[in-house]
Amino acid sequence: MDIFTELESEVRSYSRSWPVVFNKAVGTTMYDEAGNEYLDFFSGAGALNYGHNNPQLKKALLDYLSGDGIMHSLDMFTSARRDFLEAFDEVILKPRKLDYKLVFPGPGGANAVEAALKLARKVTGRESVVNFTNAFHGMTLGALSVTGNSLKRGGAGVPLVHATPMPYDDYFDGDYPDFFYFERLLEDSGSGLNLPAAVIVETVQGEGGINAARVEWLRQLSELCKKHEMLLIIDDVQMGCGRTGDFFSFEEAGIVPDIVCLSKSISGYGIPMALTLIKPELDIWQPGEHNGTFRGISPAFVTGAEALRRYWSDDELRDATIAKGLRVESWFNTIAAHYPEHKLFAKGRGLARGLQFPSGELADAVCKAAFERGLLMETSGPEGEVMKILPALTITDAELDRGLRIIDESVRAVLGEPEANDTADLNAENMENAPA
Amino acid sequence: MDIFTELESEVRSYSRSWPVVFNKAVGTTMYDEAGNEYLDFFSGAGALNYGHNNPQLKKALLDYLSGDGIMHSLDMFTSARRDFLEAFDEVILKPRKLDYKLVFPGPGGANAVEAALKLARKVTGRESVVNFTNAFHGMTLGALSVTGNSLKRGGAGVPLVHATPMPYDDYFDGDYPDFFYFERLLEDSGSGLNLPAAVIVETVQGEGGINAARVEWLRQLSELCKKHEMLLIIDDVQMGCGRTGDFFSFEEAGIVPDIVCLSKSISGYGIPMALTLIKPELDIWQPGEHNGTFRGISPAFVTGAEALRRYWSDDELRDATIAKGLRVESWFNTIAAHYPEHKLFAKGRGLARGLQFPSGELADAVCKAAFERGLLMETSGPEGEVMKILPALTITDAELDRGLRIIDESVRAVLGEPEANDTADLNAENMENAPA
Amino acid sequence: MDIFTELESEVRSYSRSWPVVFNKAVGTTMYDEAGNEYLDFFSGAGALNYGHNNPQLKKALLDYLSGDGIMHSLDMFTSARRDFLEAFDEVILKPRKLDYKLVFPGPGGANAVEAALKLARKVTGRESVVNFTNAFHGMTLGALSVTGNSLKRGGAGVPLVHATPMPYDDYFDGDYPDFFYFERLLEDSGSGLNLPAAVIVETVQGEGGINAARVEWLRQLSELCKKHEMLLIIDDVQMGCGRTGDFFSFEEAGIVPDIVCLSKSISGYGIPMALTLIKPELDIWQPGEHNGTFRGISPAFVTGAEALRRYWSDDELRDATIAKGLRVESWFNTIAAHYPEHKLFAKGRGLARGLQFPSGELADAVCKAAFERGLLMETSGPEGEVMKILPALTITDAELDRGLRIIDESVRAVLGEPEANDTADLNAENMENAPA
Amino acid sequence: MDIFTELESEVRSYSRSWPVVFNKAVGTTMYDEAGNEYLDFFSGAGALNYGHNNPQLKKALLDYLSGDGIMHSLDMFTSARRDFLEAFDEVILKPRKLDYKLVFPGPGGANAVEAALKLARKVTGRESVVNFTNAFHGMTLGALSVTGNSLKRGGAGVPLVHATPMPYDDYFDGDYPDFFYFERLLEDSGSGLNLPAAVIVETVQGEGGINAARVEWLRQLSELCKKHEMLLIIDDVQMGCGRTGDFFSFEEAGIVPDIVCLSKSISGYGIPMALTLIKPELDIWQPGEHNGTFRGISPAFVTGAEALRRYWSDDELRDATIAKGLRVESWFNTIAAHYPEHKLFAKGRGLARGLQFPSGELADAVCKAAFERGLLMETSGPEGEVMKILPALTITDAELDRGLRIIDESVRAVLGEPEANDTADLNAENMENAPA
Repeated sequence: MDIFTELESEVRSYSRSWPVVFNKAVGTTMYDEAGNEYLDFFSGAGALNYGHNNPQLKKALLDYLSGDGIMHSLDMFTSARRDFLEAFDEVILKPRKLDYKLVFPGPGGANAVEAALKLARKVTGRESVVNFTNAFHGMTLGALSVTGNSLKRGGAGVPLVHATPMPYDDYFDGDYPDFFYFERLLEDSGSGLNLPAAVIVETVQGEGGINAARVEWLRQLSELCKKHEMLLIIDDVQMGCGRTGDFFSFEEAGIVPDIVCLSKSISGYGIPMALTLIKPELDIWQPGEHNGTFRGISPAFVTGAEALRRYWSDDELRDATIAKGLRVESWFNTIAAHYPEHKLFAKGRGLARGLQFPSGELADAVCKAAFERGLLMETSGPEGEVMKILPALTITDAELDRGLRIIDESVRAVLGEPEANDTADLNAENMENAPA
Repeated sequence: MDIFTELESEVRSYSRSWPVVFNKAVGTTMYDEAGNEYLDFFSGAGALNYGHNNPQLKKALLDYLSGDGIMHSLDMFTSARRDFLEAFDEVILKPRKLDYKLVFPGPGGANAVEAALKLARKVTGRESVVNFTNAFHGMTLGALSVTGNSLKRGGAGVPLVHATPMPYDDYFDGDYPDFFYFERLLEDSGSGLNLPAAVIVETVQGEGGINAARVEWLRQLSELCKKHEMLLIIDDVQMGCGRTGDFFSFEEAGIVPDIVCLSKSISGYGIPMALTLIKPELDIWQPGEHNGTFRGISPAFVTGAEALRRYWSDDELRDATIAKGLRVESWFNTIAAHYPEHKLFAKGRGLARGLQFPSGELADAVCKAAFERGLLMETSGPEGEVMKILPALTITDAELDRGLRIIDESVRAVLGEPEANDTADLNAENMENAPA
Repeated sequence: MDIFTELESEVRSYSRSWPVVFNKAVGTTMYDEAGNEYLDFFSGAGALNYGHNNPQLKKALLDYLSGDGIMHSLDMFTSARRDFLEAFDEVILKPRKLDYKLVFPGPGGANAVEAALKLARKVTGRESVVNFTNAFHGMTLGALSVTGNSLKRGGAGVPLVHATPMPYDDYFDGDYPDFFYFERLLEDSGSGLNLPAAVIVETVQGEGGINAARVEWLRQLSELCKKHEMLLIIDDVQMGCGRTGDFFSFEEAGIVPDIVCLSKSISGYGIPMALTLIKPELDIWQPGEHNGTFRGISPAFVTGAEALRRYWSDDELRDATIAKGLRVESWFNTIAAHYPEHKLFAKGRGLARGLQFPSGELADAVCKAAFERGLLMETSGPEGEVMKILPALTITDAELDRGLRIIDESVRAVLGEPEANDTADLNAENMENAPA
Repeated sequence: MDIFTELESEVRSYSRSWPVVFNKAVGTTMYDEAGNEYLDFFSGAGALNYGHNNPQLKKALLDYLSGDGIMHSLDMFTSARRDFLEAFDEVILKPRKLDYKLVFPGPGGANAVEAALKLARKVTGRESVVNFTNAFHGMTLGALSVTGNSLKRGGAGVPLVHATPMPYDDYFDGDYPDFFYFERLLEDSGSGLNLPAAVIVETVQGEGGINAARVEWLRQLSELCKKHEMLLIIDDVQMGCGRTGDFFSFEEAGIVPDIVCLSKSISGYGIPMALTLIKPELDIWQPGEHNGTFRGISPAFVTGAEALRRYWSDDELRDATIAKGLRVESWFNTIAAHYPEHKLFAKGRGLARGLQFPSGELADAVCKAAFERGLLMETSGPEGEVMKILPALTITDAELDRGLRIIDESVRAVLGEPEANDTADLNAENMENAPA
């Protein structure tokens, strides 16, 4: 591995947790060069919702490449782009009665966020944006300014301004009414809060520790935005594309954001792509006012369109994701109940799930133990205190259970075997899947 | 084309110049759905230096995809990443005796720039950066703040600060000594210039109008940076990967920047990828301080490594690029000489070439005329007054000449046939290739 | 009055409420050119704590001026400056065992605040500052950025950044624990709050609506600052110099701020002067790093020193101020009790007192009615909903009662005569002074 | 002097150069407590243009104070304010056919500058301002951002943004055309210069080293501002009130700025006061949008009005100032001619005069030598390399000559006696006053 450590910057991180060289992957399984198998509960940080090298997408991609289809086209019209647009319109927008225009903002999630912030500021003529505690929106300067993590913010090298953090749902463990502070600041002309152009929010904070906002909270936030004429930007980069069940994570709340950011799994195959959806009345951009080289990557259009048609023409994937998510929750609740003294607790929605530990050290130790047992997962949260899983939505029940068993073993390896009576009061429903 | 105009934001631009739907491309030729052929002198804005669907790269890519190699891996160790690192080290760094560490900053050129600016600020503890008139570095907030174009800057929606523009080479047509103003400000403690963390510069400004800095100017800039302890960042996103002849555009000047940004053609196949090269002593980042989802796109590694080995193991491509560039220059000089009253003039270096017109309208009209004749090229410069070509480096001489003839015809179509005696004094060397 | 309205900018404000031309003033009485008398409950917004043309200060001033003492000296050593320093040391600092160094930051309160912010940032190396809802700290750019009022903030013309507002004491009417949000943000490394260099606070928010923080709240704030190594800046520009009773408004809380800002009544005679007190260990400035023309205005030193010796060598003024303040509070409570349906309530500490109305219109109408009856007072609060009085600390009991009676009459004129039984339950103590 | 050094912050500066305690002053003479006399060529950094304790102004002030006139009134109407307005209108504005509205922005020059910048930004809706190399506009955050000196800028503790420095007149010793760079940036939409709201400039840079702009340069700047719709702000805080001869320093250039900042000598007696003059069409402020406690200091109005009527009702002071300025210039030229090897040279306009030395050390040594000989003057310029004098405009010829002789002696004490033949070619006019 010398070439990696010699040539790459110290900024690399995942390779420190998983010091092996991967070379192949299919579905939910990754392989290293020594032939070892790993069950992947990380899924490219949510970029591989349909698994590695999904065979149906792979076929479409190989066909396209073999036929010398356009690979790269900026924002030129191409057949592949049209096909993607048609699929997105027919499979996603129309059935949901959503009226959005599409911006191809560049190849990554941060580009989708940067475009959203730029447009919100242009439309409103205001600079300030409200973000939430423990938000993560990306590493470019605009996206970073609305991100919470202090290590990452510190990397900016300039003061990050124009954003004010507000408490995310349940930031005070339910002790205070939602938005009591935000609303008060908005209504008080002496509060010192610059009136925001927009509010940017994740429905479930992935990097922030798998914090899932309640739908009531999202609805109230949407109302608050309307009342104070702030644009609502949903960053669905990690939680969109079915991660929580529905294609958009905000569907369950019945809200319609002004701007939506998509990336990660939108291409379905791990190829860089991003989308910013904007309400038509916000489309005041001049041609070329926002641009970029990697806005028309046809392989991403091809696999993206295929994924939409394959997985979103009916509710099968959605329903399965919700069911699997509940299964994970049961397991996590059971594990948590084993260790009442550690106050573990389960978090999340859909197949974005977390198990919160009292410290980052413990959560990290569990992930290490799982890696030794052939499972890939990472921690999140400000102190890395949340064990986080993002399995492929296409994972089989057997694979899911295998992974959950490894997690259970790993927790036991770190925290010790639970005392017998700790599990006495577990409810029956959980027990059938739960570890003894 | 209804689906495009209905669903896409008004921000789209290239599709306005070229209102056809492309579906295939090989080498330097693109095809639309009606079967029309276009000679591509645009090359994905420099992202396709080795042509569309380059057969050797295509084979490597298809083999990799067929074998279920890892597609997406963030910064995990993978075989594909190692192979790319080895190729980059052996083919690029070692022969040039360059000692850089590699940062994979995200999928696009703006990510490479954002990472460079962040690191420069972190290392020096200063915020301010010097950029140059008519610079273009990207559309994310950090990159945009060092970009010159006022339309694009205006899109930010927040004041762009922390950057001070200095005159690029020849900004005053040679009337003033190089850096006379910049150096004076640096040496004058009362100048009001915040001491910059870094200077960011393109060796040839592509978007800015194909302005090619002289090597003496680059050398002086490098000296100035050393003298005042500012880091020198070369943005080689468009001009690197052989666009000017050498792999790095700064090689000819014999300078060694502190930080180098690469993207566009680094993957060789139009797949998003970017690199930030940093001197080892600048590698003070903590693990994960800069990160991102699309930092380990294996298909890009595969085609990128193949391209490096195929085209940079010897000087053939480099020498051919320089020769072809001179050929273009001759043609452009000849065309310019036909219209002394319009004061056209040729610009550029290597195969980044421009022909400056007195107005954006004329340059645009020539591009339109060329499109009607089956040639794709765009304008650049602050007013779009420069006709700009970036042919694939792998273009054949015949294709190049065919394109140049179309350009000549297009200029004639717009400006009228030159008077006979206008060409009387053209030098012999130019005449052999030049239009009659 | 034509010359005023013709020549002065529309930005003038007080002259709109009191459209007469004043020409003389003694103690608590002002006179207009027509010879009308006004009882002054405004006192130069707190710059005239010892009354207009206080005879003892006047004598010292006339003597000094007659003797051709130095008038203006920047930061040169002068006899007048020494005398002021000695008086401040002996009368103020030593008896309170306070160890501060003095900065003369310029002539006004905003200069004191600007110097405080600059020093706090220099000492800590951080940019961000926490201010409070409804804070007022001045109109220069640095001071304005920590001010709450949106009209005034909007006047900046640039985004005001580097400051984050936190809820002031009782911002939520006691519904939530103090600092629950601020502390949570500080302790959560993912909160998105840039670690502040300092916290700047008024112990009683004058412009913000006569909001008086409880001493427990101030103590907790002081502890929070120590715990998180933020500097505590008390802006005592309006509330210092005895306005709340003690010379410093924070004495009652038993805290020792890192930096204290004084101005307004520090000269005692309405002559511009400001002071920034800093703990000795913060004195890291280089000579001249902060300077200004009006830092050594000797007449201000002369009247200032005289005022300190006359009024602060014993507790008489302090005790009288507190007693008068309580008297005002009783009256205001009584008035409020007359109108339960309007939910008026009394606010404030010492002789900074307010009566909150349900709307700015009502409070304004009462001030207008009082002006017609010969009393000067203004409104404050974000919507101007608080009737605010700042009588001279040297006001006689008779004058105070006369003014309070005018206020009572004015409230009746606006809200109507109270119903008889509304006053039935007023406590006996209040009744003896209160209106029938 | 213990009390000074013990109690005052290390930021104090003048007291380091002149370590005596001053106690009296009349006209151009200051006295220390030991009874020593000093000829004052510093004049409160320009705040004492009519000398110390000017008897006519003193009489008006004592009369006013004795009569219990209003001292402090914010922006209330007062007799003293009206009298000042009338004097300013009749003596200054009307004779010059200037149509300005007056803003009383606060007590000091920085307030005048802050108000000017705020209004310019509000009127234009732009944030950026152009300032000039070696500018000095004040120490509050807004004013500091347009100031050049790096020590003072560094004191801000936050990045100073929104301002771009341009070369002041003669910044390149006449080697380049005026505004060649500024104009180019404005006309080039790709320059990266944010279009400025305003240009702020001193006609003579006092702190910057007594750099006097030529009237042609000022005229061109005014034209440039009109052409590009930028507001022109003249900071006449130090150079106005007759310092260069005319009341306004820009009169000689025949230009009419959009906004003018006055302070320092506007009260005539060293009492803090400032004015911002704005063209009527710019008066878009809402009442109270900019305010402040010390905007109506009547003693300043009284002495200010008296000074205007006494000194500006005819051309006597103006003409005398210009004559004295030329006299100083002659002397300085003569002194410079004595030391050709040191390349001294005379700078300035009116009675703002400088003698530039090759280093700050030499200029400082000359000031020290002068102090020992009873003359007060300071250095300026980025390295303190300019010996700077600002005598009272009311200085007698005898006093002026006495001071100039001390300067000559001091230079000789530092640089040595000039060689005999060095003075051989001095012209006759200079010789009569010049040192042998």
